[in-house]
Amino acid sequence: MTTINQGKSIRVFSPATVSNVGSGFDIMGFAIEGAGDILEMELRNDSRLNVENLTGAALPEKIEDNVIYPVIKALQKELGVDIGMNIRFRKKINPGSGLGSSAASSVAVAYGFNKLLGSPLIKKELIDYAREGEKLASGSAHADNIAPCMLGGFVIIRSYHPLDIIEIPYPETLYCSIVFPDISIDTKKGRSVLNKSNSLKDTITQTGNAAGLVAGLMMNDYELIGRSMVDVIAEPRRKDMIPGFDNIRKAALNKNSLGCNISGSGPSVFALSTDKTTATEIKEAMVMAVMETGHKCQSWVSPISKNGVCEI
Amino acid sequence: MTTINQGKSIRVFSPATVSNVGSGFDIMGFAIEGAGDILEMELRNDSRLNVENLTGAALPEKIEDNVIYPVIKALQKELGVDIGMNIRFRKKINPGSGLGSSAASSVAVAYGFNKLLGSPLIKKELIDYAREGEKLASGSAHADNIAPCMLGGFVIIRSYHPLDIIEIPYPETLYCSIVFPDISIDTKKGRSVLNKSNSLKDTITQTGNAAGLVAGLMMNDYELIGRSMVDVIAEPRRKDMIPGFDNIRKAALNKNSLGCNISGSGPSVFALSTDKTTATEIKEAMVMAVMETGHKCQSWVSPISKNGVCEI
Repeated sequence: MTTINQGKSIRVFSPATVSNVGSGFDIMGFAIEGAGDILEMELRNDSRLNVENLTGAALPEKIEDNVIYPVIKALQKELGVDIGMNIRFRKKINPGSGLGSSAASSVAVAYGFNKLLGSPLIKKELIDYAREGEKLASGSAHADNIAPCMLGGFVIIRSYHPLDIIEIPYPETLYCSIVFPDISIDTKKGRSVLNKSNSLKDTITQTGNAAGLVAGLMMNDYELIGRSMVDVIAEPRRKDMIPGFDNIRKAALNKNSLGCNISGSGPSVFALSTDKTTATEIKEAMVMAVMETGHKCQSWVSPISKNGVCEI
Repeated sequence: MTTINQGKSIRVFSPATVSNVGSGFDIMGFAIEGAGDILEMELRNDSRLNVENLTGAALPEKIEDNVIYPVIKALQKELGVDIGMNIRFRKKINPGSGLGSSAASSVAVAYGFNKLLGSPLIKKELIDYAREGEKLASGSAHADNIAPCMLGGFVIIRSYHPLDIIEIPYPETLYCSIVFPDISIDTKKGRSVLNKSNSLKDTITQTGNAAGLVAGLMMNDYELIGRSMVDVIAEPRRKDMIPGFDNIRKAALNKNSLGCNISGSGPSVFALSTDKTTATEIKEAMVMAVMETGHKCQSWVSPISKNGVCEI
């Protein structure tokens, strides 16, 4: 049996994540340090879930519509406990931003609840429960935000049946610049614009680029990383949903970005670079490109998050 | 100008290659040590090419139909030389075997000719000229046999426009078992059976497996290599051309092969394993499975070739 600590509390930082990473469409993601949700949690002496929204993005009115609900329900069942939580959100990652908003909430509560119960499960085991939140949010229990949010670093989702998650090394100095234009793209919409089938040629191109991206990350080969960040499957279909996408990318590349792609299904756009100074210049150029479309945006510069979700 | 050495001779070993490597369909290949062509070459004092077949597989009657012809013609043009060669073949790799027969010949003459002329080009530069042979043989200047034959080791062909070849590290103890059943599959035929388009799901599965395969090779993770050697694009369409393929694979996996796939477009089948003893047992089991179909086969056990084509 797990140790039960009613009233014990925890404060958790759950990072924003970039999924897809160009040619890693649907199979790769990474976490950043610079943006994320903060959740405070404490165990209750009943099985209820009580949510309070301190600051940040709005939450669903009904608890059953919040992604945390199926996550905690699944963990309660797995661990055989009848314990609920009071959860206070400081939600910094907006839903529909393409930065893994639902994943950040789902991972935060899975991590927090497990830790408050004495850590009966390890982080990697929690991934499957956190995916229940993605199922509620988008209809598909995808893991390309959940896994990097939980584990940190660059993660490959090789397979779902069975779930096969691979953490790969990457250059320590890698930096990420992100802009989030003030529009929202629903994950389901982002998927509905995709073609149901692809040419053999495109499949081979995507495979070659994904292989090159993994090799580039693992060999610290920045140029190879950049050359490989080309998505011929999803991005050509999705980019028209993001005002000025081509110019945002051009702005990033002009400032020595290695590569620039849509984060998730957008509208956030990310660019990778080799150091903080370059990443800051890239961010500023991308912000300018967004402003030229008449939209406002949030923006961040961040190294890759080494550890993912953590107690703070 | 290059140094000219009429009459100078060289003897070259050009290895057999396994292209595709399961999920690395059309983007990956490796060379083996255990099988290959041996060519003796000497410069002539005219621009002619003279070919003699000492032993092994038959060669085309007309020199213009031999893959070496466009390779040497392209190099003569590039290097601005009017020099031909006498070439004596000991061709051990059969055309239509799926083991890079045309690549071995093309690479051998490109390497030998260049070396006899004082090595004006480096190996990587020769790849483009050797690809002229593939163009003649199959109508497509593919590089997934040429590149590993030239360079050795595991090679990713990330892109053709421009050509982007990436040599990746792999476990030093990796062994390869190969059976070549006594049928011939023309490369053009092997391509014509493929679907022109693929489902989005299969494209993502293939990308994930290719990414996993690269990660597994580079992290010396044998189990990951094995799990990732799954081709959902080409192999399901090609395997019916190889009598007893499913049983050959089952035989290999039963003997602790990491994975087992068609080599090139077949009919050769290869399996990877962690050591020579296991690789030998796998080879014997695969040979038995071929024999049960009423076919004969050639077979090899070999480590991965570190250096590719070389002077001997």
